[in-house]
Amino acid sequence: MPIYKAPVEDTLFLLKDVLNIDRYNNLPGFEEATPDMVEAILGEAARLCEEVLQPINHSGDKEGCTRHEDGSVTTPSGFKEAYKAYVEGGWMGLAASPDYGGQGLPYVLHSAVGEMLSSANMAFAMYPGLTQGAIAAIQEHGSDELKQTYLPKMIEGSWTGTMNLTEPHCGTDLGLLRTKAVPAEDGTYKISGQKIFISAGEHDLSDNIIHLVLARIEGAPEGTKGISLFIVPKFVLDAEGNPGTRNGATCGSIEEKMGIHANSTCVMNYDDATGYLIGEENRGLNAMFVMMNEARLGVGLQGLAISEVAYQNAVVYAKERIQGRSLTGPKAPDKKADPIIVHPDVRRMLLNIKSINEAGRAFMLWSALKGDISHRSGDEKEREAADDLMGLLTPIVKGVLTDKGFDNTVAAQQIYGGHGYIQEWGMEQFVRDARIAQIYEGANGIQALDLVGRKLPKDGGRAMRLFMEEVNTFTGKHRDNEAMQPYTKPLRDGVKALEASTMWLVQNGMANPDNAGAASTDFMHLMGLVALGYMWGLMAEKSLEALKEGANGKTSFHENKLATARFYFQRVMPEAGAHLARIQSGADSLMAMDAEAF
Amino acid sequence: MPIYKAPVEDTLFLLKDVLNIDRYNNLPGFEEATPDMVEAILGEAARLCEEVLQPINHSGDKEGCTRHEDGSVTTPSGFKEAYKAYVEGGWMGLAASPDYGGQGLPYVLHSAVGEMLSSANMAFAMYPGLTQGAIAAIQEHGSDELKQTYLPKMIEGSWTGTMNLTEPHCGTDLGLLRTKAVPAEDGTYKISGQKIFISAGEHDLSDNIIHLVLARIEGAPEGTKGISLFIVPKFVLDAEGNPGTRNGATCGSIEEKMGIHANSTCVMNYDDATGYLIGEENRGLNAMFVMMNEARLGVGLQGLAISEVAYQNAVVYAKERIQGRSLTGPKAPDKKADPIIVHPDVRRMLLNIKSINEAGRAFMLWSALKGDISHRSGDEKEREAADDLMGLLTPIVKGVLTDKGFDNTVAAQQIYGGHGYIQEWGMEQFVRDARIAQIYEGANGIQALDLVGRKLPKDGGRAMRLFMEEVNTFTGKHRDNEAMQPYTKPLRDGVKALEASTMWLVQNGMANPDNAGAASTDFMHLMGLVALGYMWGLMAEKSLEALKEGANGKTSFHENKLATARFYFQRVMPEAGAHLARIQSGADSLMAMDAEAF
Repeated sequence: MPIYKAPVEDTLFLLKDVLNIDRYNNLPGFEEATPDMVEAILGEAARLCEEVLQPINHSGDKEGCTRHEDGSVTTPSGFKEAYKAYVEGGWMGLAASPDYGGQGLPYVLHSAVGEMLSSANMAFAMYPGLTQGAIAAIQEHGSDELKQTYLPKMIEGSWTGTMNLTEPHCGTDLGLLRTKAVPAEDGTYKISGQKIFISAGEHDLSDNIIHLVLARIEGAPEGTKGISLFIVPKFVLDAEGNPGTRNGATCGSIEEKMGIHANSTCVMNYDDATGYLIGEENRGLNAMFVMMNEARLGVGLQGLAISEVAYQNAVVYAKERIQGRSLTGPKAPDKKADPIIVHPDVRRMLLNIKSINEAGRAFMLWSALKGDISHRSGDEKEREAADDLMGLLTPIVKGVLTDKGFDNTVAAQQIYGGHGYIQEWGMEQFVRDARIAQIYEGANGIQALDLVGRKLPKDGGRAMRLFMEEVNTFTGKHRDNEAMQPYTKPLRDGVKALEASTMWLVQNGMANPDNAGAASTDFMHLMGLVALGYMWGLMAEKSLEALKEGANGKTSFHENKLATARFYFQRVMPEAGAHLARIQSGADSLMAMDAEAF
Repeated sequence: MPIYKAPVEDTLFLLKDVLNIDRYNNLPGFEEATPDMVEAILGEAARLCEEVLQPINHSGDKEGCTRHEDGSVTTPSGFKEAYKAYVEGGWMGLAASPDYGGQGLPYVLHSAVGEMLSSANMAFAMYPGLTQGAIAAIQEHGSDELKQTYLPKMIEGSWTGTMNLTEPHCGTDLGLLRTKAVPAEDGTYKISGQKIFISAGEHDLSDNIIHLVLARIEGAPEGTKGISLFIVPKFVLDAEGNPGTRNGATCGSIEEKMGIHANSTCVMNYDDATGYLIGEENRGLNAMFVMMNEARLGVGLQGLAISEVAYQNAVVYAKERIQGRSLTGPKAPDKKADPIIVHPDVRRMLLNIKSINEAGRAFMLWSALKGDISHRSGDEKEREAADDLMGLLTPIVKGVLTDKGFDNTVAAQQIYGGHGYIQEWGMEQFVRDARIAQIYEGANGIQALDLVGRKLPKDGGRAMRLFMEEVNTFTGKHRDNEAMQPYTKPLRDGVKALEASTMWLVQNGMANPDNAGAASTDFMHLMGLVALGYMWGLMAEKSLEALKEGANGKTSFHENKLATARFYFQRVMPEAGAHLARIQSGADSLMAMDAEAF
């Protein structure tokens, strides 16, 4: 059975030394996030994840969710108790607004905890995860009345939330959606239609489920400009604000999926269900985007989280499994064979994962911190800059961390040989679970298009310039620092490839938009390499500083960081050249053939 | 439900035009493989695959195999009937020796059919697939008596075969194996021990199951030099050569796996089972290697096969699914949205798969043809050269076609968006099935080590020189051919990277064997890129010739080949540079950290 140990030490290094969140203790919520408090919270989260959530991850996959004839859904054994522990720990409201009962702590801390939850039990973590997306959308766009009515219960965890976008004929292209909303006389709406792939759509964990549903108000324009967002509670509230009448929102079936079996993915049928408009009519997509950005960071984090737990297990196996001898002579002469971690190719796989996970964690927290600043800073220019960067980098967090996360999980499974393919070892579950993160919340190809088609050209490329400036300032600062050259030199090479790609896009993407589409995925991954490389630069800088200062007795921690950084630059960064070559080859080779020739 | 259409036209192009198998009609078996005969056989195989095997692939995955209390195993519904059809069609003996009832046709033709079988139903195809491996080992190393006793029944398909290598504590490192063989007075042996991961170990398809079992004869030396190979039939034969007494070879359980559910993967318990020595005592690994080489080509073929069927389905979906509009304006203005195949990023994924599959098919057939020549040619030098090349390239067929095949299958699933994650669409089964091919028959890291540590240095690098000579002769021949430059120029760049890598290995691998281990996987993939590129060079050459000659009314076939070849060289070949950089970075970054630091 798999193990999991939350990466508390690494997270503290990132929050304290690399991101130095103390700098922001003048921002709301950050003043309470003292080093002691942060350490205590991460420790408590680790306990919940290691002792409560991880032990029911494998059993939850095997058991799955059960839909009963009356449309109710039962989660796997132990999930109700685990959710109770989650709620009692106050985890749902960690970063939520104190106005509605939240603790208002930084989002960056919430993200650090989020990684642990998904490592321990991704299917479980989705129940609260979707709730937090719904909370964000109501908070940002709901009326005061809606906020007062729904947020306190959701933030305490008594009620959960969902996102209802997809219909059978429309996923990416929401302009095609058909679910309709008919205005009633009392200001509410009657919602009818079918939604699919609704995670946590029906279950037995909470007293009410608050569905956020995209629908088209009768007579609204066609396409994306005629879509509105509604709250559709499973139980319509009574006069006291408690769950009352059962609403016409029912689970028609649960999907049989490749993985995340313990999360109920529902076909939801809306049949004259009572709904409440959030924000303005026909501005539903706008309101939903708040949820989607948050959700995309959360999905990127899932990619990292599964890669991390898969890595930890692969390491255990690689140290325990004895098979063959080192090419340079026996390393465990007392045993019949050496542990397979002596083999360079096994280390190659492990270090590949490790170097991407540790940089991915830094990148995810760095992005989440930008989110905090963009919401909480008192300085408008600082807010704008942080918002620019977070917007630019969200598709990269989502697309790159889930693509790399999946590949890493597959590599971790590979280290197990045949045992990796057998269910009881648990590695194949990680692969099946990790796979969805590349698909939902906008398939990764859509993330790449969002980056190249929207985020990059936005405001005349302001966000991209800001990002490049930040990285170039960093490498420039260390230009004469001998000890930093193994890190900054290959980072500069990556930056050069990214600059050349950007230039190529500016020159060729306008003339023929297919050139931008043809470059998109490679551009996203190239930028991901540079972003992760920048994180390794920052981590190397802090590690070298710490070693110079005596390292506080943590010499090996910092030396291992530097070794992993060197691996990244020698073995991962070289992909940059391939991406550049593909980008510069343009769209011609893609568009030459007729559709019928495929 | 997924579809499948056997690639008959493409296979004929390869056999006739590219490989020109007519050249070999002086070899045994080839004289019967006339163009008409080949076309008829491929047509019949296509019918079996499309109409009989593919329709029970998805249901077989859902139903799986069932082990009963008495240790017997039932295959999924329809498998018995399908196996009957397979046997009646004479497919088991297609390339088997006429001395024992086989048809003796070329192995290259057998391989072409093998791809179709695995595309249609990989779990099914493994039952006869393992039998063919067993046939090869008995044929090569068995005594005349053993051959007369077992081969006719196996070649007709009444009896099936298995390979028993792995034990719980030993997979790659067979030197650790413990299953023991005690000589009996009548010249037989009593076999006792436990084997795991035994594909097709027990089932209801055949009258007898002929297990090939590696075991250690009492008193034999430790390690790999004390291993012998035995035939252990499920039923010991009676005096007439028919299945008689039940032998002590029983299925203890069937493994719950990630995929290939319709193939029974057994824990096999041997308890004083009667066994018959194949070949010499303590030379079992040698005899088993015959089976393993054959099996490795067969597994490479599975990687290609699943990638092909996944591709075909992704194409159907990409043409039917309408979502969004082309970046260059509506392409299906009469519909609410364009089919997603208009998007460059969707085409990028499809062409990536297509360009690797078509070259992979060529490479697989090219390698199989070398196998034919190495066995059947009357010219000793020709035999030796073919054997050199087949030995060198077997780990690449296995490692590269299964790694790329898996990635391709994942990409094909990605094109389905959320639907790809749902079981009923069938794409996730392909991913789960394809995954095993990277693991079994020597995990791909072992293939890479076999290439770099054994095949490359063998006979002073003779095989590698031969391969490079062949590719360089090809590019040299076209040096002044303008029309070939888009293909040969990037191929030469790939060759240069391969030459530089080989040189680096020669200089650094001897001094420090870890440098070879550290380079192995990248070297295997770099050589794979060149091998597939060489195939594209050959296919482009023949397509240009055909177009010049009027193309026989198949202009678009050849033009699409050229377009796909250009995609390969512009978009896939650039990976070569990243591999070279990683190889040249050496082992230091891998070996720097203590095992405890992972």
